[in-house]
Amino acid sequence: MQIVVLAGGTGGARFLRGVRAAAPEAEITAVVNTGDDVTLHGLRICPDLDTVVYTLGGGIDEERGWGRAGESWTVKEELAAYGADPAWFGLGDRDLATHLIRTRMLDAGYPLSAVTAALADRWQPGVTVLPMSDQRVETHVVVTDPEDGRQRAIHFQEWWVRHRAALDPAAFVQIGVEAARPAPGVAEALAAADAVLLAPSNPVVSIGTVLGVPGVRDALLTSSARIAGVSPIVGGAVVRGMADRCLPVLGIEVSAEGVGRHYGARADGGLLDAWLVAEDDPADVPGVDVRRLPLLMSSPEATTALARAALDACAR
Amino acid sequence: MQIVVLAGGTGGARFLRGVRAAAPEAEITAVVNTGDDVTLHGLRICPDLDTVVYTLGGGIDEERGWGRAGESWTVKEELAAYGADPAWFGLGDRDLATHLIRTRMLDAGYPLSAVTAALADRWQPGVTVLPMSDQRVETHVVVTDPEDGRQRAIHFQEWWVRHRAALDPAAFVQIGVEAARPAPGVAEALAAADAVLLAPSNPVVSIGTVLGVPGVRDALLTSSARIAGVSPIVGGAVVRGMADRCLPVLGIEVSAEGVGRHYGARADGGLLDAWLVAEDDPADVPGVDVRRLPLLMSSPEATTALARAALDACAR
Repeated sequence: MQIVVLAGGTGGARFLRGVRAAAPEAEITAVVNTGDDVTLHGLRICPDLDTVVYTLGGGIDEERGWGRAGESWTVKEELAAYGADPAWFGLGDRDLATHLIRTRMLDAGYPLSAVTAALADRWQPGVTVLPMSDQRVETHVVVTDPEDGRQRAIHFQEWWVRHRAALDPAAFVQIGVEAARPAPGVAEALAAADAVLLAPSNPVVSIGTVLGVPGVRDALLTSSARIAGVSPIVGGAVVRGMADRCLPVLGIEVSAEGVGRHYGARADGGLLDAWLVAEDDPADVPGVDVRRLPLLMSSPEATTALARAALDACAR
Repeated sequence: MQIVVLAGGTGGARFLRGVRAAAPEAEITAVVNTGDDVTLHGLRICPDLDTVVYTLGGGIDEERGWGRAGESWTVKEELAAYGADPAWFGLGDRDLATHLIRTRMLDAGYPLSAVTAALADRWQPGVTVLPMSDQRVETHVVVTDPEDGRQRAIHFQEWWVRHRAALDPAAFVQIGVEAARPAPGVAEALAAADAVLLAPSNPVVSIGTVLGVPGVRDALLTSSARIAGVSPIVGGAVVRGMADRCLPVLGIEVSAEGVGRHYGARADGGLLDAWLVAEDDPADVPGVDVRRLPLLMSSPEATTALARAALDACAR
């Protein structure tokens, strides 16, 4: 069995762990958002790819949900002592080795997909981890500068990590997306898939960014696999992250129904065959097999059960 | 009073601390060897510059003589866990922030002298620290490969740090030295100097490399200042480092007299007006004012006394 999962960071990574446990014999491919990627202090940082690989490879800080377990922050403190900007990004010492190797390989001309494979070789995530694209696509957020009242676009990481999403977003812009192509293996995995899952990741800046890479949506629509999505909204609120700050920008209601309708029914040119929502969430999504079940990935068992239900929803 | 000191790493840095203490009112300029510089893991590392700045700025590990006090090695261990070469270089976490900033500034087009000044701004070394040159000059060592018996040139750091100078050197080669020019301020400082001191650094791969930059030797020879050197050889042995492995390659005897004669008397087209040697060391250097005194920088007081004696030897 071949499974493709579209994923962002923490939530997507945990869901992937569930899929791996639910289908230990399957070939699983994760297509991971790289719109959050950023270059800081000369280091190329891919937060979602690292979160996925660390989580599946046993290196993640489980409580924080990102970065390495047992992390220290010496380099970050020293950079701050030099007055080097930015100081707000969580650059851990252990994590930094990953960025150093990635940066050196990219500078040497290797594509991000090859770099990701080389880094994953240490972590043995048990799934094939692919960036959505080898081309750089960076999400920027159009905000109103509180100091001078002017609109400007800031990097997603600055909006989210530095400002904790406090600045009202007017728009999300994927810089470079027009020139991006799916990374090697993405279209092939989707063509060969028996099941495609949309992880409960941010529909705008994670799943939405992956879907925005020219060719990805078409590969999904033409795949013979059934597609099941998992709602990131439970009880009208985000479980984690800032999707509630992103969805209204695109006119999407912050609800399981709103996101389901945004993805849309396959019969109507949308993506979903099935849509998994929490037990108490109303979700009328015409043309989609809406299934109600516990969505919280509160334990390995709960996560595996959720993944199994998503795979079941893809069975014919 | 204006003083210029030519220096390598640990010994040069400690000597500079003595000069600063001996002449607190003077304008002191350190012209520092950059032949040991190396790019590892994508980071530009300048061991001698960092040792000088850390030592004078209070950040040095006093016992080790290089790197930062209270250092940790997390990034190095993580790089090794990825199998990233080389694993033999002592890349500390605190130190790494310095290299990150330097690399980013160099990549942005700043010359090494400007980068060095920016980094020194944090450490306030109390002396002007200049690289010998803004151009890259890297010392390589011609050795016989023990595996296949063939000669090849390896970077000085590989010879010294990885092999602990165990491979017999056939030659030292300064890659890039022909195209190098003295860094901004070097010639000016030498022209304006009242005293020029050669620190007790390695005469071949530290002082010798500085002197090899086209223009530096001429600037010394035409300076109106008197020039005093301090022998790095005491009792026929090196105090620290591997000058005993370097001097024979150039046919220089491993003795205070041998090094003194190598530098030569100014009257004969050499560099020295005065040569400071240890009390029990024979040193007949024709045309040079040879002075005998304790050379070991075993305490701040001893170091200051040595520096004072070197400055005294420059007085007319």
